[in-house]
Amino acid sequence: MKTLSSTISLLVVLAFYLPLFGQGRRPAAETVDLLILGGTIVTMDQGRNVIEDGAIAIKGGKILRIGKPSDMRGMRAKQTIKAAGKVIVPGLINTHTHVPMVLFRGISDDLDLQEWLTKYIFPAEAKNVDEAFVRAGTRLGLAEMIRGGTTTYCDMYYFEDAIADETKKAGVRGVLGETIIDFPVPDNKTWEAGLAYTERFINKWKNDPLIVPAVAPHAPYTVSQEHLLEARDLSNKTKAPLVIHLAEANTETEFIQQKHQGQRPIEFMEKIGFFNDRTIAAHVIQANDAELDLLKKHDVGIGHCPQSNMKLAAGTAPVPAMLKKGLRVGLGTDGAASNNDLNLWEEIDTAAKLHKLVSGDPKTLSAAEAFAMATIGGARALHMEELIGSIESGKRADLVIVDMDDLNQTPMFNLYSHLVYATKADDVRTVVINGRVVMLNRNLLTLDENAIKRVANAYRTKIINSLSK
Amino acid sequence: MKTLSSTISLLVVLAFYLPLFGQGRRPAAETVDLLILGGTIVTMDQGRNVIEDGAIAIKGGKILRIGKPSDMRGMRAKQTIKAAGKVIVPGLINTHTHVPMVLFRGISDDLDLQEWLTKYIFPAEAKNVDEAFVRAGTRLGLAEMIRGGTTTYCDMYYFEDAIADETKKAGVRGVLGETIIDFPVPDNKTWEAGLAYTERFINKWKNDPLIVPAVAPHAPYTVSQEHLLEARDLSNKTKAPLVIHLAEANTETEFIQQKHQGQRPIEFMEKIGFFNDRTIAAHVIQANDAELDLLKKHDVGIGHCPQSNMKLAAGTAPVPAMLKKGLRVGLGTDGAASNNDLNLWEEIDTAAKLHKLVSGDPKTLSAAEAFAMATIGGARALHMEELIGSIESGKRADLVIVDMDDLNQTPMFNLYSHLVYATKADDVRTVVINGRVVMLNRNLLTLDENAIKRVANAYRTKIINSLSK
Repeated sequence: MKTLSSTISLLVVLAFYLPLFGQGRRPAAETVDLLILGGTIVTMDQGRNVIEDGAIAIKGGKILRIGKPSDMRGMRAKQTIKAAGKVIVPGLINTHTHVPMVLFRGISDDLDLQEWLTKYIFPAEAKNVDEAFVRAGTRLGLAEMIRGGTTTYCDMYYFEDAIADETKKAGVRGVLGETIIDFPVPDNKTWEAGLAYTERFINKWKNDPLIVPAVAPHAPYTVSQEHLLEARDLSNKTKAPLVIHLAEANTETEFIQQKHQGQRPIEFMEKIGFFNDRTIAAHVIQANDAELDLLKKHDVGIGHCPQSNMKLAAGTAPVPAMLKKGLRVGLGTDGAASNNDLNLWEEIDTAAKLHKLVSGDPKTLSAAEAFAMATIGGARALHMEELIGSIESGKRADLVIVDMDDLNQTPMFNLYSHLVYATKADDVRTVVINGRVVMLNRNLLTLDENAIKRVANAYRTKIINSLSK
Repeated sequence: MKTLSSTISLLVVLAFYLPLFGQGRRPAAETVDLLILGGTIVTMDQGRNVIEDGAIAIKGGKILRIGKPSDMRGMRAKQTIKAAGKVIVPGLINTHTHVPMVLFRGISDDLDLQEWLTKYIFPAEAKNVDEAFVRAGTRLGLAEMIRGGTTTYCDMYYFEDAIADETKKAGVRGVLGETIIDFPVPDNKTWEAGLAYTERFINKWKNDPLIVPAVAPHAPYTVSQEHLLEARDLSNKTKAPLVIHLAEANTETEFIQQKHQGQRPIEFMEKIGFFNDRTIAAHVIQANDAELDLLKKHDVGIGHCPQSNMKLAAGTAPVPAMLKKGLRVGLGTDGAASNNDLNLWEEIDTAAKLHKLVSGDPKTLSAAEAFAMATIGGARALHMEELIGSIESGKRADLVIVDMDDLNQTPMFNLYSHLVYATKADDVRTVVINGRVVMLNRNLLTLDENAIKRVANAYRTKIINSLSK
């Protein structure tokens, strides 16, 4: 009897205190900025956890808590989005593009890289690219990226300060670097001017919650050894990422080999000490096994652009070998003048299929691996995996709600298979970046789609006229 | 003065008679079924004519006249569609699929062909495929194809009579053949039963305006030599097309070489006299130059399926060489269980990029050539170029109105570039097949999308349960 009464006392005490403990863990009156209720959460965390009928609470731009709707009981939310029947994935990460070039989309195609550049792109740029052009192109590209579920992108172009300004206004996350190169470009006429611009740019944006300013020397074949090292030094001094095109074409390999005693581009860059642990290299096609080890040694991030590489017949990056070595590999669209869109879903699909074909093994690069490249892999490639790339509490709230109900997705057996092989950009419904809803049910909230198109079409006429002169 | 008065008299006479001549050429009161006014017509005719601000008059399922809106003056139309600002292209042609397999979309991926077939597809088929399944899958596939602008497809599956019935009801054009094979399948348990089924099927459908019944032996490695020749004989007797998988995998080549004194599949098939001038062969990857000449000699049509071939790591069909030899080459999606959709726009885009990569030449397979493969090339592959594949008066009215105003298509410099590299399936607005509007402003008029999804999702549950037993 004594035992029974003790037990009852204990239960009474527990019944009294437990709710208080519960409230201690989850304050009943906690106010959050955004609550997403229902839907399947594809977290892309280390364990690749998938939460059916999940819920996400967002506060101060961060993911405060993920779990089940019942875990959010008692929370007050300034905004609630119901996602039942939909899939919630980390925002997609485009690790390599030149966003304003979307205004040159399809200006010329199906040409050798050199002919394409010298006959079409360079003249078109020389005659058209100014700050207003860059702003218009950036807005167009941002709108296309948001509508396709891209929440972070890595960019190299001119007037990058205007790109940063437009990107911040649109609420998109960007790793942005002014392209600096050894010949005059639309804004900076010398290497020195470009480098000084970059340093000012970094100082201006370095504490921004959305913009990560970068140092972006164009490529080993367009920037001298001395200037490459100056770029690296600026990156080291400012702790800004170091973004570059690397090992894209065999013409690049031949050029570097001729200039630098037979060394191949990656070999050469490592020998001169270019790489730091914030390097982000686009393409990386011309890379043998020893060179991949060099990249691994310096923890270089890689932006793999399968569709651009196919269209320009540049070759295929050794992605399965890169992943096996644990390299940081993400996906990129490259500029829309060469691709011809900013659609990351197609890059995921193409990557998964391309590496099966090239390896001759249909088990290569599974759907889950390909999807990882567009999310947490992209975050790793940008050295930002502590902040973005997966849905985990404490990370920035960059996420995308995807419809899984369209005809092209019916029926659904496997989440990753559907995300990679069946989902299209227009299945994206709602996009949240840094806790802010930038698209809701396919309506852009931070950009004016009709105005963007009107301005882009005016530039179309201007570009055509400029080239016919 | 005499000259002036003569001139005036002549002008008066001309002013009187000219309108009559005009009326004589174009009867003022002619009634047509459908008039499409405005828009840019990409005809894909021999001269690849493009008509800006065009017009198309349709009567009795055929294109009666194409030209300018002013050419249609005085016509009475039962229905008028305004297409200003849009692009009108021939309906896309999917030269190879297995439409009901869309119900197995993503059931398993990233596996060896044999493992995929024997562990997943064959068991799933054995436990689920009956006539009701085939009807449900066909409706789902047709809905996806129409929404993506496909107006004709070539199919091989089981219960093909039900597929034909559903296809006709949906108003879609099909070259349809019951898969006949040397082992028991869901409907026909023997080769003989399959062949007899095919003959009944051909007799039933041979005069249909939409359905072209075909003889469809599965492949050289699954049908004996004797049976292959029986299939050919039935094709010769009935004048039905002869559809087959051919030279898809290197395992097929090895199998045929072992069985038939070292002969490769195409060599073997030509030696036994299989090919007639109505043959349609899917894949054709394992084909050397001499074998392409054999296919050319027999005027064999080819269904190139780039995405399926990539995903299964089957290899790359030598398409540039095929086109150089004047072979009939179209594009196909293959079944959605292996691809995983029925989206021909992605096949066009992938084809254009893939052959650049494989050839190492970015000038290979231009956008215009790739787009031709999906239209007039597909019609040629199906031996139907007299009827479909281009917008020309006298041809069947199979055409698609495409929006060119979405963000992903802005700005637009080159029509073919945009159609190949920038247009997505959801840019298709309106679809006309055999003069009938089957989708108007993205609303399906012959199929019930919600009912289709409901039934497909019920099959999803049934399939999962059947495989877990």
